[in-house]
Amino acid sequence: MATIVQKYGGTSVGNPERIKNVARRVLETQRAGNRVVVVVSAMSGVTDNLIRLAREVSEEPLEREMDVLLATGEQTTIALTAMAIEAMGGKAASCTGGQAGIVTDGVHTKARISSISPDEVNRLLDDGHVVVVAGFQGVTSGGRITTLGRGGSDLTAIALAAAIKADVCQIYTDVDGVYTADPRLVPDARKIPVISYEEMLEMASSGSKVMQSRSVEFANKYGVPFEVRNSMNQNPGTLVTRETMNMESVVIRGVSLEKDQAKITIAALPDRPGNAARVFSAIGSAHLNIDMIVQNTGRDGEARISFTLHKNDLKKAREVLEEAVRGIGERVEILATDGIAKVSAVGIGMRSHSGVAATMFKALGDAGINIDMISTSEIKIAVIVDEKSQENAIRVVHQAFRLHEAPLV
Amino acid sequence: MATIVQKYGGTSVGNPERIKNVARRVLETQRAGNRVVVVVSAMSGVTDNLIRLAREVSEEPLEREMDVLLATGEQTTIALTAMAIEAMGGKAASCTGGQAGIVTDGVHTKARISSISPDEVNRLLDDGHVVVVAGFQGVTSGGRITTLGRGGSDLTAIALAAAIKADVCQIYTDVDGVYTADPRLVPDARKIPVISYEEMLEMASSGSKVMQSRSVEFANKYGVPFEVRNSMNQNPGTLVTRETMNMESVVIRGVSLEKDQAKITIAALPDRPGNAARVFSAIGSAHLNIDMIVQNTGRDGEARISFTLHKNDLKKAREVLEEAVRGIGERVEILATDGIAKVSAVGIGMRSHSGVAATMFKALGDAGINIDMISTSEIKIAVIVDEKSQENAIRVVHQAFRLHEAPLV
Repeated sequence: MATIVQKYGGTSVGNPERIKNVARRVLETQRAGNRVVVVVSAMSGVTDNLIRLAREVSEEPLEREMDVLLATGEQTTIALTAMAIEAMGGKAASCTGGQAGIVTDGVHTKARISSISPDEVNRLLDDGHVVVVAGFQGVTSGGRITTLGRGGSDLTAIALAAAIKADVCQIYTDVDGVYTADPRLVPDARKIPVISYEEMLEMASSGSKVMQSRSVEFANKYGVPFEVRNSMNQNPGTLVTRETMNMESVVIRGVSLEKDQAKITIAALPDRPGNAARVFSAIGSAHLNIDMIVQNTGRDGEARISFTLHKNDLKKAREVLEEAVRGIGERVEILATDGIAKVSAVGIGMRSHSGVAATMFKALGDAGINIDMISTSEIKIAVIVDEKSQENAIRVVHQAFRLHEAPLV
Repeated sequence: MATIVQKYGGTSVGNPERIKNVARRVLETQRAGNRVVVVVSAMSGVTDNLIRLAREVSEEPLEREMDVLLATGEQTTIALTAMAIEAMGGKAASCTGGQAGIVTDGVHTKARISSISPDEVNRLLDDGHVVVVAGFQGVTSGGRITTLGRGGSDLTAIALAAAIKADVCQIYTDVDGVYTADPRLVPDARKIPVISYEEMLEMASSGSKVMQSRSVEFANKYGVPFEVRNSMNQNPGTLVTRETMNMESVVIRGVSLEKDQAKITIAALPDRPGNAARVFSAIGSAHLNIDMIVQNTGRDGEARISFTLHKNDLKKAREVLEEAVRGIGERVEILATDGIAKVSAVGIGMRSHSGVAATMFKALGDAGINIDMISTSEIKIAVIVDEKSQENAIRVVHQAFRLHEAPLV
């Protein structure tokens, strides 16, 4: 008898009809001879409504109470899902995050799971229940309600799967799995049957937002394999798992596009110790996320540092930097550009295959697409291109690695 | 420094603006030098919406999960109220029923409080917080969420007041207090400044539905005085407390009207042991509430039993009785009438004053109102009249006891 954790997001439980669909699928899984834990999110729209209510009573709602408020969203879904399962003749019991034994630190609205005591979940499973657990939430050791922040329900599912030693963890969403590229941009993109945690992480941080990085990191850390599937059909999804030997035979697993990027270049920065730190600590203090960083030093003892960030952060970053570089050197200049995008090719196979960068750059060059910046990791090559070329760029790279036809396992 | 428990019902917290009003009032109370616990209900309409959702996933929603679902209503209000208090510069913390230490039995949707461990509430009070507690809910000793049923939030407030030894418990509602009669029917009705638990109970069970009887009974049992007040103004309300010596100087505290009553008479019932029991156990098994019961036995050895009930239960009661009396006696007849109402006069003073019944009957007689049935308790006289006379009846009784002018303390 296998133990399966299934997670359904806000769209999959968005109304009573869809909750019934989830109940049906869950019962089928149980009746096929499995022990089933279901992790659910708030019904889509509910969280936004609660946030709107909070804003009406307070301009800056207390984070501790925000968690008490938002936790009602998933609590509503667990009750309705358990009712729906019972109405179909099943046996179900709901658990809030706290009841499921999910203990977190006290950082409200973005708490981290510190431990899980799944005694109640195990007891209910042993008693033949489908256990319906509220995603996204936990309690502190002092019993205060917390929420886990973005992607929190995925994290609940993966962490619970680890705690109860589940055989399978299925993350149901509104897409069939992870693709070699976004199918809206690359029509011949293919679903990837198996992908390693590392590749999934690089894909996630390069714009393929099927899941938040933290859930994948958690799964990697605890060795929890999970499958991303579509809640609206029965298609097999993408299995995300530890790297295996034969995965290296595929050079590139997928390509991703991150739109709406911008670049800041600090030119003629005197190349003295501490200057780069001064720049990036100013950016850090302003809570701005930056991505690729490139530095060159010329013969004149002046550095040129460029980095990319989301275009929405460009104005603030520029202000912060102008303040930070004041007095550093008289020729220092800050140049800001938006209208760029990042194209990444990801694959653990590139570790053992040479010539990957050459293939990618040649494909872009042949298509007349100029490369503005380059950044590489062990399993990723990313380039910055003009946003006018972004869709063409991802298509030619997808084509160059033959992702439309290559065998993918 | 006094400790005050304030309870606000669903209308008083019905929207963000009203929640802010509650926050303002609570802060005033705290700033006047008090420790304040606030018990809140779900925002009006929220509970009905949740019930509607439940019905959409299940024809007969599981009661255990219904409690998980409904408890989100008050949880939403506590978070918003705490936020509103903080936004006004106060210090507040919310507690669900479970966090406030309210432990109940496991009878879902109508649980009874079995114990309260107010450690967390006391700790938060000591720390200078306004403590905002979710009414209507608790947890079982096994940690399952329960709700207390109708009037549950009043019960939470009174029980918490007892547990933390509060000096004052204020029940805020949408009326100024308890009146000598319903002011919509008797324009010169007056607010009652002080009333005993017993009188309040008799008034409640006679149609003055300011509060559910169970909360008053609980307050009586644990000796918790409480005040019924209007959340929309600063008027003093009605203090409900233990009987005191001088209360007896007022013969009648108030009169109440219960509309939409019906009567069933079982005529020619052979007066043998067990026949009455047979009748009333049939009614009891059908979960029908009956009120006044009158029995007379004639010289012919046949009894005539009449009782009253709500007119909505009349049809079902008749069916049940026709089944129950089958074979008891051939002349047995069941007569059902609706279109009647109950007028009650309540006052602990009637124990020591004779002639109260006479005054009431004479007033009704002088007004040409026929009395159909009479029932008395130690502190109440109730009569059944035709519903056409009901409003006139309550006015003339109110007048007869000079409730429009009598000193009321």
